[in-house]
Amino acid sequence: MRPLIRRLGPALAGLVLIMLPAMGTSPWAQSPPGVAAAIDDLVAANRILYRQGVVDGFGHISIRHPDRKDRFLMSASLAPGRVSKADIMEFDLDAQPIDQRGRSIYSERFIHSEIYKARPDVNAVLHSHSPTVIPFSVSQVPMRPILNSAGFLAPNVPVFEMRHVAGSGSLLVTDGMRGRALAETLGDRPVALMRGHGNVVVGPTVQRVVARAIYTEVNARLLIQAITLGGPLVYIDAEEGRAGEGNRDRNEAGHGTDRIWQLWVEEAMGTSETKR
Amino acid sequence: MRPLIRRLGPALAGLVLIMLPAMGTSPWAQSPPGVAAAIDDLVAANRILYRQGVVDGFGHISIRHPDRKDRFLMSASLAPGRVSKADIMEFDLDAQPIDQRGRSIYSERFIHSEIYKARPDVNAVLHSHSPTVIPFSVSQVPMRPILNSAGFLAPNVPVFEMRHVAGSGSLLVTDGMRGRALAETLGDRPVALMRGHGNVVVGPTVQRVVARAIYTEVNARLLIQAITLGGPLVYIDAEEGRAGEGNRDRNEAGHGTDRIWQLWVEEAMGTSETKR
Amino acid sequence: MRPLIRRLGPALAGLVLIMLPAMGTSPWAQSPPGVAAAIDDLVAANRILYRQGVVDGFGHISIRHPDRKDRFLMSASLAPGRVSKADIMEFDLDAQPIDQRGRSIYSERFIHSEIYKARPDVNAVLHSHSPTVIPFSVSQVPMRPILNSAGFLAPNVPVFEMRHVAGSGSLLVTDGMRGRALAETLGDRPVALMRGHGNVVVGPTVQRVVARAIYTEVNARLLIQAITLGGPLVYIDAEEGRAGEGNRDRNEAGHGTDRIWQLWVEEAMGTSETKR
Amino acid sequence: MRPLIRRLGPALAGLVLIMLPAMGTSPWAQSPPGVAAAIDDLVAANRILYRQGVVDGFGHISIRHPDRKDRFLMSASLAPGRVSKADIMEFDLDAQPIDQRGRSIYSERFIHSEIYKARPDVNAVLHSHSPTVIPFSVSQVPMRPILNSAGFLAPNVPVFEMRHVAGSGSLLVTDGMRGRALAETLGDRPVALMRGHGNVVVGPTVQRVVARAIYTEVNARLLIQAITLGGPLVYIDAEEGRAGEGNRDRNEAGHGTDRIWQLWVEEAMGTSETKR
Repeated sequence: MRPLIRRLGPALAGLVLIMLPAMGTSPWAQSPPGVAAAIDDLVAANRILYRQGVVDGFGHISIRHPDRKDRFLMSASLAPGRVSKADIMEFDLDAQPIDQRGRSIYSERFIHSEIYKARPDVNAVLHSHSPTVIPFSVSQVPMRPILNSAGFLAPNVPVFEMRHVAGSGSLLVTDGMRGRALAETLGDRPVALMRGHGNVVVGPTVQRVVARAIYTEVNARLLIQAITLGGPLVYIDAEEGRAGEGNRDRNEAGHGTDRIWQLWVEEAMGTSETKR
Repeated sequence: MRPLIRRLGPALAGLVLIMLPAMGTSPWAQSPPGVAAAIDDLVAANRILYRQGVVDGFGHISIRHPDRKDRFLMSASLAPGRVSKADIMEFDLDAQPIDQRGRSIYSERFIHSEIYKARPDVNAVLHSHSPTVIPFSVSQVPMRPILNSAGFLAPNVPVFEMRHVAGSGSLLVTDGMRGRALAETLGDRPVALMRGHGNVVVGPTVQRVVARAIYTEVNARLLIQAITLGGPLVYIDAEEGRAGEGNRDRNEAGHGTDRIWQLWVEEAMGTSETKR
Repeated sequence: MRPLIRRLGPALAGLVLIMLPAMGTSPWAQSPPGVAAAIDDLVAANRILYRQGVVDGFGHISIRHPDRKDRFLMSASLAPGRVSKADIMEFDLDAQPIDQRGRSIYSERFIHSEIYKARPDVNAVLHSHSPTVIPFSVSQVPMRPILNSAGFLAPNVPVFEMRHVAGSGSLLVTDGMRGRALAETLGDRPVALMRGHGNVVVGPTVQRVVARAIYTEVNARLLIQAITLGGPLVYIDAEEGRAGEGNRDRNEAGHGTDRIWQLWVEEAMGTSETKR
Repeated sequence: MRPLIRRLGPALAGLVLIMLPAMGTSPWAQSPPGVAAAIDDLVAANRILYRQGVVDGFGHISIRHPDRKDRFLMSASLAPGRVSKADIMEFDLDAQPIDQRGRSIYSERFIHSEIYKARPDVNAVLHSHSPTVIPFSVSQVPMRPILNSAGFLAPNVPVFEMRHVAGSGSLLVTDGMRGRALAETLGDRPVALMRGHGNVVVGPTVQRVVARAIYTEVNARLLIQAITLGGPLVYIDAEEGRAGEGNRDRNEAGHGTDRIWQLWVEEAMGTSETKR
């Protein structure tokens, strides 16, 4: 859907008498360029994950602060599809907000802080309730990749079980102890499932995390269908997984993750001419 | 999709010559604040349940009257997606309309009246044909929660069988006797399935009822997929269910049900900027 | 989605300088009231069936001529979602167009003519490629109703096999002989499946045919899910089916098929305020 | 959704003061009529395949050059849903661009060049990650047609295994050797699956390729459902497949592929009045 002003452009061009200033001002208006770009990407990531069905009203995604490796950026406690620039806050690696100003914050922010501590290679973290990972999180059938775009799931995807950490009770990761246990289950991998709850997805950039989250969901759906067919399946093996990831590291316009990221941004931010 | 007036705002601001008064006047225009808020919530709930696929053209949701515990509010007989403020009517606990004025009324309104009688803790009741609960209502496989957000389904979900109440014939709950039998099957639980027909969902607030209805449908879809994978499954147990419900009782902006309710309202009422 | 003129109403009310006449004129402009209403319903039915996913670019629906029982009304050969009033043509019971004027006609129009000949009780006929009936048409598992809204499928749904009529070759019903064989398989029922092809759905009114087609598709999806769960299922029995149909015969605003037909028309014709 | 200018037509007709020229100019502005038509079809095909869910941000479709059988037309490296006329480039049968001007090109363009070399009857080639073909590509259950519209899949669909060609590693067809191996697996058929990756679909016209790709995906979904039901299935046999294809070769308005192509184009290019 094209933005209306653009659609009306020629027809109404002679009629625009008053342009009102945009309402509200972002605390980030004066950010250094690297931070401003990270905030733009983070808002887009929130909207994309909602539009693609990875999150509903719950879930949260963060970016490590580009200038301070001991901080990260994440929205105040909102549904991801409603996040705007002004909602992005800064947190330290104890998951404490730097400048809360009365805003609600996610109670599971310790997922992010503990993974950033444990994984210097990681610059973006997502926690989601991605629907089709749930069946794999509660069954003994492992999630494995059958789709080239999900080759990063090779060779295996661990499942985090809260009962082993804190007994039966809340499944939420609401403190550092629970966050550390989850980071330990994740190890050096890009994805871990959380039993009866969802998953965490990490990566070197927010674009890669978004793509990994979307293709984890797609792979889950297709793997259930393949298992329905019955008989042995051919999985993407570790070498194929590595080769695919190498390709997605290509940093050129039109290649790797770039090609689809542009599409996702245009659609989620309402700047696309694409009809779907 | 944003409402057009808002989208056109800046461009057409100088052109608005005449603002027509809204057409039609609601009988509720002079309601006390508590009733007015309940009616707003009830209209939103109808639209949300339609938009989220819990109801199609059938199904109905009610709120106990905020000032008179022996009455409830519910729409005249319309598809839920078409309900507006002016359609909301008042009923007594014999399911009789207080002020019918020739309007059609739902023939299954006894579901609501009998549950309000039996359950003083309940302030909102939904009857729906939520699609994916049907397979569980006609099979011997019990619906159980595998998803944290559906933990309220623990430890079990009863199935109402009309044949045991009135023999083979209409499945509709069209009188007090049938309504009482359904309320008895429901007991003190939040959800009961109705064989070959749908479900009833109840709760302390209409927001909780809407959320429970949506996650009952989501859980049903995911549980079918988990069963397709084969082998034993790990269900949300009673303690996990209680912990989750406690969290959803938190009454703060951005927490519990509030976070997702705001999103649902904006989308269903057309006031969202979110692109999906 | 609300029609734009209505959405713009207040804002642009002072600006409408010229109202252009609608382009094109329908040959039906001078029709008697009964025929005009039938044409309106038929256009709506085409659009609804497309919007609800019963037809894609193929399939066709007809109405028996309200004044001449030996004729029927049906679109020229177009995708149902593109049908407008001016496309509706009149056919005799040999499936010959009364006034072709060079327009393309459906090659399977004999489905309609032969069913109208064999079934005086039938006033509307649909042929569709309704997706989820295909699996039942090619397997030995019978389609049976598990959903109250699909109770008209009780006690059974026959499957038409073209190989028994004309050997292996085209599956299309392109002449009177094939149409008669299909009508014979249908018998006095509302629905027959066509192996590897789709179905026919008939009824006393076009509203009932549209509702039956939609709930046949819904029932097919839910029955596959129920079968996936495993174990014995409880089907809607013949008495329950009859009771449900009796209810759908109620001819009052807000009851039977009326409640959902209004919703479907508003959405398919773009006159709805409902957001979905 | 109708284009806004058209929707606003009558209301704003008196207000259009300035018509801005369209931005950007296509290198194809001066193309001979045959090439111009091919480019229009190719842009429409890209948009349709995205809208219908056959491609996401990946996949590519080409048309053999209408005047030079040793060249083909294909987009620069973009998500198919974002392709416009100005993005269409010309390639020779070694997959080299004739006039690159710094644009990114698809690394798997060898799929197209090698199939055009091997198949003089083919005038359009698609490579897609059509989701539901993946389960069949990784299992031992063959994809076979159960739907008349997918009869071109009879009698069988081969699966290309990159490990047999180049060992375990990248699954991408990035050179002539890999392209030739894929063309060999395809043989004289319209469709081949690529294990863990997607498919190739070819045909005499781009319209036929688009229709084949869409019905291959639809057939895959329905076949999984039919297999879920259990028991023996009746497949579309080779004679039925041939009869169906003969029908789709009819070159008349409203028949064969034409009826649905018009619908798809209108929707994907935003010129449709159809509400869906």
